[in-house]
Amino acid sequence: VDLTEARREAEQLDARDPLAHVRDRFSIPDGLVYLDGNSLGALPVAVPAVVEHVVAQQWGRDLITSWNVHDWWDAPRRVGGQVARLIGAEADEVVVADSTSVDLFKVLVAAARLRPDRRTLVIEPGNFPADLYIADSVAELLGMTVRRVDPRDVRTVLDDDVAVVSFAQVDYRTGRAYDMAGITAAVHDAGALMVWDLSHSAGALPIALGACDVDFAVGCGYKYLNGGPGAPAYVMAARRHHATVRSPLTGWTGHARPFAMEGSYEPAPGIDRMRCGTPPMLSLLALEAALGAFDGLSMADVRERSLSLTRLFLALTDRVLAPLGFEVVTPRADDERGSQVSLAHPRAYGVVQALIARGVVGDFRYPDVVRLGFAPLYVRHVEVVDAVEHVVAVIEAGEESDPRYVVQHTVT
Amino acid sequence: VDLTEARREAEQLDARDPLAHVRDRFSIPDGLVYLDGNSLGALPVAVPAVVEHVVAQQWGRDLITSWNVHDWWDAPRRVGGQVARLIGAEADEVVVADSTSVDLFKVLVAAARLRPDRRTLVIEPGNFPADLYIADSVAELLGMTVRRVDPRDVRTVLDDDVAVVSFAQVDYRTGRAYDMAGITAAVHDAGALMVWDLSHSAGALPIALGACDVDFAVGCGYKYLNGGPGAPAYVMAARRHHATVRSPLTGWTGHARPFAMEGSYEPAPGIDRMRCGTPPMLSLLALEAALGAFDGLSMADVRERSLSLTRLFLALTDRVLAPLGFEVVTPRADDERGSQVSLAHPRAYGVVQALIARGVVGDFRYPDVVRLGFAPLYVRHVEVVDAVEHVVAVIEAGEESDPRYVVQHTVT
Repeated sequence: VDLTEARREAEQLDARDPLAHVRDRFSIPDGLVYLDGNSLGALPVAVPAVVEHVVAQQWGRDLITSWNVHDWWDAPRRVGGQVARLIGAEADEVVVADSTSVDLFKVLVAAARLRPDRRTLVIEPGNFPADLYIADSVAELLGMTVRRVDPRDVRTVLDDDVAVVSFAQVDYRTGRAYDMAGITAAVHDAGALMVWDLSHSAGALPIALGACDVDFAVGCGYKYLNGGPGAPAYVMAARRHHATVRSPLTGWTGHARPFAMEGSYEPAPGIDRMRCGTPPMLSLLALEAALGAFDGLSMADVRERSLSLTRLFLALTDRVLAPLGFEVVTPRADDERGSQVSLAHPRAYGVVQALIARGVVGDFRYPDVVRLGFAPLYVRHVEVVDAVEHVVAVIEAGEESDPRYVVQHTVT
Repeated sequence: VDLTEARREAEQLDARDPLAHVRDRFSIPDGLVYLDGNSLGALPVAVPAVVEHVVAQQWGRDLITSWNVHDWWDAPRRVGGQVARLIGAEADEVVVADSTSVDLFKVLVAAARLRPDRRTLVIEPGNFPADLYIADSVAELLGMTVRRVDPRDVRTVLDDDVAVVSFAQVDYRTGRAYDMAGITAAVHDAGALMVWDLSHSAGALPIALGACDVDFAVGCGYKYLNGGPGAPAYVMAARRHHATVRSPLTGWTGHARPFAMEGSYEPAPGIDRMRCGTPPMLSLLALEAALGAFDGLSMADVRERSLSLTRLFLALTDRVLAPLGFEVVTPRADDERGSQVSLAHPRAYGVVQALIARGVVGDFRYPDVVRLGFAPLYVRHVEVVDAVEHVVAVIEAGEESDPRYVVQHTVT
């Protein structure tokens, strides 16, 4: 397989890429082809100094006074405002708090309470498993029924018993992107509320929560937002719900007067009511510093770069990898694709492990998926060619059949 | 007021203090008298290098492989095991996850589900407000009733409708410590389950969850455990409940086979089932490093030092501060006291602010409490004398009546 020509074209794409300089905002090990930014985003260069300051100066020197002096208190809302710009929400509609699963729990209970006469929760069967588990738990607590349906078929289940519909905008496994505007409108037509999980879309493509009239959203801080391992997640609640929405996780930081230490809960007037306990400040302020990597970028440009990367990978896959037994799982239409490409292969686990041994990091999703993420802020076109070249080399040498690589699904 | 003699005695206490060297495990600004370790523990010297490594090497260089290479995956259980040693639990009974409020929510729902025929939740009126709010929310979700009673009077409300009793071992406001063994036994005699919030006791006094047969506990990572601002909290579940307890926060990390990405939730066999989403690794690993400050210490020695500090402060208060209008709120009997002393004063807010301006950091609790925490790992006896001297100076100069110090309860 000769990829000389492909490499030259990729180099040209990189040379005229208006976002090529953004890679300098990240610290990426030399020689590593990192295609797992959809799982854990790379380290932005601005982060280490900020974290060092938070530890040594804010915690170490200023101690408890940092809640005011360094405005720790307002950080969840402040960082929420930064996230809001990336997802098409107003700054006062987003707050950073807890994990994605905990936030989804809050939002599903809160949304269901806004439709008390309806008893059905709709979710898609291919959603990230935690979303399925949380939906089942919410349904058990509230005495509701869960229906699972492909988002493209949502209209077939919408009736006047559906309280809430909750979908992921981009499927974590296949990389399929759903039609946020159309689905949200259909859900509203049926009188239900719409929740989107943005974990696999925010930071990779333009999102217009406001324009799509979305009710609630949640998302992860450590994938395309690059906030660091386990960075806190975020909740978006449309302003029209702020007066009435009630989170079941009534922690003190969501109280209207948190320092009055009152005996009963009165939710804060705005998005703060979706907060719960004290946030993990090291992780939260690392996320804040990381979000600076998006400064000055238009999400339309970011999306164009993402599509350019995935288009190139799909073209090379068709030409080079399909004959080696790889089948494209991700949709080919640009508007149905996130920023990853998933390939099915009978020895997918071995392929992923052999690639990692070669310095090409993607991940495996049970049972047979090689998942490669093209984080649009730092992956280069030449690395797309590198990846394809290494996949070919793996298969040609049979490296994926190494007995160490028997399918395991109990490790990452 | 002449404190010369008191200072000499304090210096002697410090000189023969077997734990005096432990202060060297902390980075405390020169000249600062820090009496707020019950709210945010000081920075252990081991932490900055660990956090730097986590950011630059684990996240930055090893990226996603750190889940295995640096065993991020097992960190919640591993750090839980460290906490277990401080609270008298088995290593496999404690896991670090989420915030105290979120963990209390999990535990109250989980415990109530173990007593499905009982509909009453008992909590004390003076508990940290978040605990009250969370209990109310749990009761609403499960259709239960909350009764609030002073822990010393718990026997008056125990009947066969009580499913769960949840108290704080040490009251955050008064510093009163409750009888864990006696109360837990009484609750069990009534067929109910016992939950303790250890936020204001763990790390300051010996706790014997196992010996007291406690069912569940939660606690904060950033007070006497010194884990850093918003460090994750922990959950203890007694081993006898592991097979049957069900958390309502069914995140993927609590699943029996988290990487199998199954469509329905099956809780992990042990304490892992109390996990939920991906933990904030920077904050979690800072907590792990911080807990090293307890290495080689016996909690009995730590407790003796804590009592020595609070006894000295109480004695000086009686002699010097009582005539200036300060009233001791905290119990005087050693076994009824945590590691803080609270003083009521009509201008408490101004006193706290004036002390902070003088480099003596305590905190204010609405409406009239000056709260001073004597973290036993790093506060010295001479600092107790310093604090008293500064309180005297504040009152003598009328500094607490500065018009800037009008009572505010909307700031920390």
